[in-house]
Amino acid sequence: MTIYLDHAAATPLDPTVLAAMQPYFADDFYNPSSPYAPAVAVRRDYDMAKATLAHVIGARPGEIIMTAGATESINLAFGVRSGHVVTTTVEHQAVLAAAQRHDYTLVAVDQKGRVDAAKIAEALRPDTWLVSVGFANNEIGTVQPLAHIAAVIEQERQQRLEAGNTTPIYLHSDASQGAGQLDLHVGRLGVDMLTLNAGKVYGPKQVGLLYAARSVSLTPQIVGGGQESGLRSGTENVAGTIGMATALRRADDARHKEVRRLAGLRDDLQARLLGAFPNAVISGHMKYRLAGHLHISFPGLDAERLVFALEAHGILVATGSACAANKGTRSHVLVAIGLEDSVADGSLRITLGKTTTEDDVRVAADHIIAEVQREQERTRR
Amino acid sequence: MTIYLDHAAATPLDPTVLAAMQPYFADDFYNPSSPYAPAVAVRRDYDMAKATLAHVIGARPGEIIMTAGATESINLAFGVRSGHVVTTTVEHQAVLAAAQRHDYTLVAVDQKGRVDAAKIAEALRPDTWLVSVGFANNEIGTVQPLAHIAAVIEQERQQRLEAGNTTPIYLHSDASQGAGQLDLHVGRLGVDMLTLNAGKVYGPKQVGLLYAARSVSLTPQIVGGGQESGLRSGTENVAGTIGMATALRRADDARHKEVRRLAGLRDDLQARLLGAFPNAVISGHMKYRLAGHLHISFPGLDAERLVFALEAHGILVATGSACAANKGTRSHVLVAIGLEDSVADGSLRITLGKTTTEDDVRVAADHIIAEVQREQERTRR
Repeated sequence: MTIYLDHAAATPLDPTVLAAMQPYFADDFYNPSSPYAPAVAVRRDYDMAKATLAHVIGARPGEIIMTAGATESINLAFGVRSGHVVTTTVEHQAVLAAAQRHDYTLVAVDQKGRVDAAKIAEALRPDTWLVSVGFANNEIGTVQPLAHIAAVIEQERQQRLEAGNTTPIYLHSDASQGAGQLDLHVGRLGVDMLTLNAGKVYGPKQVGLLYAARSVSLTPQIVGGGQESGLRSGTENVAGTIGMATALRRADDARHKEVRRLAGLRDDLQARLLGAFPNAVISGHMKYRLAGHLHISFPGLDAERLVFALEAHGILVATGSACAANKGTRSHVLVAIGLEDSVADGSLRITLGKTTTEDDVRVAADHIIAEVQREQERTRR
Repeated sequence: MTIYLDHAAATPLDPTVLAAMQPYFADDFYNPSSPYAPAVAVRRDYDMAKATLAHVIGARPGEIIMTAGATESINLAFGVRSGHVVTTTVEHQAVLAAAQRHDYTLVAVDQKGRVDAAKIAEALRPDTWLVSVGFANNEIGTVQPLAHIAAVIEQERQQRLEAGNTTPIYLHSDASQGAGQLDLHVGRLGVDMLTLNAGKVYGPKQVGLLYAARSVSLTPQIVGGGQESGLRSGTENVAGTIGMATALRRADDARHKEVRRLAGLRDDLQARLLGAFPNAVISGHMKYRLAGHLHISFPGLDAERLVFALEAHGILVATGSACAANKGTRSHVLVAIGLEDSVADGSLRITLGKTTTEDDVRVAADHIIAEVQREQERTRR
């Protein structure tokens, strides 16, 4: 039996989502740009799915651009114009790599991985056109104060208006890790652009979206047939978009209940592990943290050995983020929050999801405790 | 009953392909970058699928970059460097749009839509770094003499070597429409880059690849986690890639037999329609033409009315290309081959595929003949 506790890396496709996609594979496979009625019906279903996605995040359908995932969405957001951008030291690789194509400033975070809106304000220059802050960190689960950052940016806009500085400034957030756990309403968040990824919320992989407010003039990265209002060409991913809409709708509908449930399970797991190992280190913010997220370090141990030992019991957890995992480098997020190397190297990322049960947590806790004890004994010798 | 004769616009997902993809949706959904064994197995399956794709086109696995479809592949190919590019007047919108981001020359084609390799040679400048010619035209089905064009480019390379001109020159071809009907072996074609689209060959939509020979230094468009050897970041589309490999493998295995079958059906349909309407105009090259492709014009008629009249009988055909279809503009391909407006406006694109039967062709021919006669009578009044 497998107990999968790495939902931040990938989530299984929800059977209901797959069922919603299924008709569009072999039956309603038509090109939405074709003129005959069955294709027009597919176009309508596609547009309806985009309307659903828009509705969940409080946007207008015309403000949604479908992409092949969060990475593409982030690249699209960073391509609006050139100039100075501000982001943080704990962003996903896609954001850091996109930022490096510009003149950029990285704002440091505190030991809990949280960025201070005032520090964002300090980093702004007259030519800053983009601030990009991930809503929830994919390694330690810390949730950022987006609304405070949005207020800083609104203030900057006012000052620019008064100063006659016509450089626009936008707030983008990669909220991929937050879907299904956080309120994604773009109005309440105050973002101008938002990235979401279906693959993190029980939807299909390689399907994502970029929300871009009407006020943002996107520059298309991929040109051609003019799909997505000319902003992202290529025959539409009808099945994938309908899958994402179904997945996000379901996740958002279940959100309040699921967050309570996940937080309960996570807190139980955390208490069990801290009970056995009082010197274990929990990373991330204790209040502003994703409900299903537990980042725990056992100082002096080798997390990779732990991952493989747990795998032998069918328990799947991660060391760092999946993207960095197979590169043998230390997580930049753990460096950014000031974790000592000996602590960072012994850290597991345990992320619960909708199929996780109380039993899973109990069984996983027992095995983790046993394996950590075994490793501690081994290293003590 | 529906008789679908618009396979150039979209193809239904082959049930075998869907079956091959199915395990990777909800069971083997792991992130291929995760370290534990089930994820490593997914990574292996993904790599195997890329090896299959490489094998079908005679390339090495490391020369295959998975993308979200032909449009993205084309954009990636055009992003290698800046400078002068050469393409033709009958390319897909994606190629034309990508070319317009450069200094570009469009080479004219003959009345059959075929480009003369000598004209490509004339268009080359010392700073030309890319020649992009679609293998088979998506509207009229004409197949281009890629090997002759490759020879021209090889000659140019030699001359540059002798002249001390260090500007590289590459041949790219969008072969999306040719998959399953033409030999895609990159060595025999002589291309340096090749674009393929799963959605045109009974595979999943929004899955494509770019073949780029080792000698080509691609510049990534989408940066981030460093997937696809750093050339195209984003969590891998495991199900989609396995689907594309299954689809392309099957289509290529069945190719010789299927091409004969499709050409027989197409020739039968063409003969029936020409028998009834001797003044109908067939476009495209009579020898170098996709086997399943029939582009036929009924001068003086309105093709859109015909499409809708045929749809009432369950027969789905296209007017122009799907991408241009809903924009109300005249096809640039038909303009390029010099078709008069009154002929162009009365043209249907009828594209057969693997589920097309003799009965389908007979029934479709009868309905097309009846509807064309009805329209001719109406316009005569």
